[in-house]
Amino acid sequence: MKHALPVTREADFAAWYQSVIAEADLAEESGVRGCMVIRPWGYGIWERMQRLLNDRIKATGHENCYFPLFIPLSYFEKEAEHVEGFAKEMAVVTHHRLIGDGKGGLTPDPAARLEEPLVVRPTSETVIGTAFSRWIQSWRDLPVLINQWANVVRWEMRTRMFLRTAEFLWQEGHTAHASAEEALEETLRMLEVYREFAETCLALHTIAGEKPENERFPGAVETWSIEAMMQDGKALQAGTSHFLGTNFASAQNIRFQNASGELELANTTSWGVSTRMIGAVIMTHGDDDGLRVPPAIAPWQVVIVPMLRDQPEDQAIVDYCRDLQKQLAAQSALGEPVRALLDLKPAKAATKRWGWVKKGAPIVIEVGGRDVAGGNVSVIQRTDLYQDGGKLKSAVMPRGELVETVGALLRTIQDDLLARSTEALRAGITPVDDWSAVESHFAESRRNPGWVDVRWSKPTGAALDQVVERLKALKLTIRNAPQGQGAIEGDCIFTGAPAVERVLIGRAY
Amino acid sequence: MKHALPVTREADFAAWYQSVIAEADLAEESGVRGCMVIRPWGYGIWERMQRLLNDRIKATGHENCYFPLFIPLSYFEKEAEHVEGFAKEMAVVTHHRLIGDGKGGLTPDPAARLEEPLVVRPTSETVIGTAFSRWIQSWRDLPVLINQWANVVRWEMRTRMFLRTAEFLWQEGHTAHASAEEALEETLRMLEVYREFAETCLALHTIAGEKPENERFPGAVETWSIEAMMQDGKALQAGTSHFLGTNFASAQNIRFQNASGELELANTTSWGVSTRMIGAVIMTHGDDDGLRVPPAIAPWQVVIVPMLRDQPEDQAIVDYCRDLQKQLAAQSALGEPVRALLDLKPAKAATKRWGWVKKGAPIVIEVGGRDVAGGNVSVIQRTDLYQDGGKLKSAVMPRGELVETVGALLRTIQDDLLARSTEALRAGITPVDDWSAVESHFAESRRNPGWVDVRWSKPTGAALDQVVERLKALKLTIRNAPQGQGAIEGDCIFTGAPAVERVLIGRAY
Repeated sequence: MKHALPVTREADFAAWYQSVIAEADLAEESGVRGCMVIRPWGYGIWERMQRLLNDRIKATGHENCYFPLFIPLSYFEKEAEHVEGFAKEMAVVTHHRLIGDGKGGLTPDPAARLEEPLVVRPTSETVIGTAFSRWIQSWRDLPVLINQWANVVRWEMRTRMFLRTAEFLWQEGHTAHASAEEALEETLRMLEVYREFAETCLALHTIAGEKPENERFPGAVETWSIEAMMQDGKALQAGTSHFLGTNFASAQNIRFQNASGELELANTTSWGVSTRMIGAVIMTHGDDDGLRVPPAIAPWQVVIVPMLRDQPEDQAIVDYCRDLQKQLAAQSALGEPVRALLDLKPAKAATKRWGWVKKGAPIVIEVGGRDVAGGNVSVIQRTDLYQDGGKLKSAVMPRGELVETVGALLRTIQDDLLARSTEALRAGITPVDDWSAVESHFAESRRNPGWVDVRWSKPTGAALDQVVERLKALKLTIRNAPQGQGAIEGDCIFTGAPAVERVLIGRAY
Repeated sequence: MKHALPVTREADFAAWYQSVIAEADLAEESGVRGCMVIRPWGYGIWERMQRLLNDRIKATGHENCYFPLFIPLSYFEKEAEHVEGFAKEMAVVTHHRLIGDGKGGLTPDPAARLEEPLVVRPTSETVIGTAFSRWIQSWRDLPVLINQWANVVRWEMRTRMFLRTAEFLWQEGHTAHASAEEALEETLRMLEVYREFAETCLALHTIAGEKPENERFPGAVETWSIEAMMQDGKALQAGTSHFLGTNFASAQNIRFQNASGELELANTTSWGVSTRMIGAVIMTHGDDDGLRVPPAIAPWQVVIVPMLRDQPEDQAIVDYCRDLQKQLAAQSALGEPVRALLDLKPAKAATKRWGWVKKGAPIVIEVGGRDVAGGNVSVIQRTDLYQDGGKLKSAVMPRGELVETVGALLRTIQDDLLARSTEALRAGITPVDDWSAVESHFAESRRNPGWVDVRWSKPTGAALDQVVERLKALKLTIRNAPQGQGAIEGDCIFTGAPAVERVLIGRAY
């Protein structure tokens, strides 16, 4: 069976990933090291994600703000532990003017050196915490529940589009509370927002849980994540939520007068998801014909391709398609009006059809002269592309029937993608009872080992370091300790001490 | 009559502007030179502007993308004229790592100096043009219609919140076309989108027209603007649209094969509006009690303040307010569901009332025990705040009546603000027939001179320079030559040559 991409997942998963990004017009290299251009189809998916997640962030009482791109060096010096984790690779602005270099080129003006260099934000705890210290005086000012949508820069040495880029887009939530309990509650509330959003909108079944101590955000007391499993069995951390305790409040002097008139440190949280999620969607839902976009986040859910032949009857076909587009747009799917596009670009119908298949539009409708005569449409469904024998499956149906059922069909496609993600995750997790079973499970011969689920005693300090080293030798990391575990019995597979919880272990992006 | 702000427009317009920004919680200094923190109410207004303008940008066929924050120095060197205009004050990234400075602080790592410095984008023509040169091969690829919402940085020496900040938020549209006619048509189409958006959504009556040669965007063939008049009579350029001809295409090699197989340069455009528009809204609609936000862009159009007294009957008041909030949210105003907030923050009702007056929420509803008993509400309307004699005007009306009429009331408030803006603009423009009349019109004694409308011969080169110098001595600039003028008679007030058009002249932000 011939597929639309130049490389299959089976042949080379990493090359396949890059080919989906290129062939589906999601993004491209920009010529600026580690930075990408997000093209309209990729950015359209991001806009849908933003809209749906933003609604959830607002519904939980948060307000959006905007804080500066630049952070003075001194802000980082205040939070020693935070600096340790982040200060290494960041873009630093040192000059504020360019002048001619005398050779026809430009150069930073030595006379315009900044007294204090500015860091391009890698994350905004320091600058937002400083604002919190101005805003918060009394218990009446709490909680402060803030979010921002922004670009951030981390000077990554090895970049991969969407997964790890020098500049990326994200939202970062930052909150301050009167007590540790409230802040922890907020941390878990937003973790659940992420889990539900990934499930409902991205059709991604993820595991929500706590990261081990060694994987915590620098300065955090607890870090929680949602972990998704890619089709090659690797884990992708798709979102994190941090309980920061009073660590940042103490460095940034976020204090409030409590009801009894005493000064207390606030407890803070932060949480974020990024354009990385687009990488998760590609590697979860893509197939050898390109991307398959879940209808909830598809910029266009239905694309109508008229089969024009430079003949007088073309006009009737275009008119028929316009009517269809209007009828579809008046329908509703997943609680919103159907997003239907009529593709009138000057290209061959077959080229357009395969273009939309590669982009992963959930439904592609082809309309030719015969369809118009019969009052029909030819429907291609992205999640059910081929007949037995490998021929493209294109179902002819009355136009009215399509219009009536399009909402249900999009719902079915969304549910189907989620069901596949759920089943892949279920099948990809193997409970394992001892270390040697971990070693044999991740033997090099195994193509897609997924994750193992093991008991551990949650060691800390040097004991944890030893565990991390053993895992590192097999290129493994602890993903998280899933939420809502019951009590467990048995011994830790690493230390032999009584186990306190189960953790998931796997390779990761 | 006592007002809610510490300073009036009459006493000190510039200080009044800053006080509105502070008292309405729109924005604040960030501690980072020239960069501000946009607070939730200010950012909420920006989000409304984005949503409404974005819909218009998409409805005219544009797609959103995202391009890198960083632009390599060499990209600027390609476009000599562009460099001349922009290369002076920009933030330059020279290092990608921080290390300890040996004194407990941090410093850019000398070993991590970038080979080629990166400029933080002041605008994106160069990086987007480079992408266009990759994307465009044939006439079939045209037009390319792209927009991005982004932050940009221009190292301004004197900054003023919203009007001129080092970092600001904007949208920048960039398009490429097969002919100069199509590109010019696009330039004017987007100018009209801005004009209509300002009028419909911001309640700002503006004048659309062409900027004189000396005010063109560096590298542009024509620059068009919408100009708004602030309450102190100064002009504020609220949006610009540039016809770039083949200037950028030539520097960036944007060529296409036309239908006859020949290679041609594309014609390009760019157009943008920014957070500066928030400054225009403040200085057009604000009064001595704070901001007045047009309902179309108000994050909350109706705010309900329960008058609680720590009494058992408080619960009944809150329940009544919750019902009211739901009933209002089920209504529609200006084509969207009414945005109604129930303010339950722990503060006194009077403090909250004045807080919302200063923020400029169009309608504030107060509900006390007597209102609940009578099935009433007390309505404060931001554009009609006082009775004769200076007492606050709070109209008691049946709850059902408010719910039924809220859509119409918000429409009236929106129309009223626009009518005031239209009238102020009309009254603020004075036709003047000779240079001495310009001089006496802008004599120092006059508080609010507005603009003058004069005939000119559209001089160029040295002749234009002379005009600009004469105006500069009076702190004046030519704002634009309004669109759609008829033929004119008479001589240029500057050169004495036959006039070809009328231009508007005034002081400006």
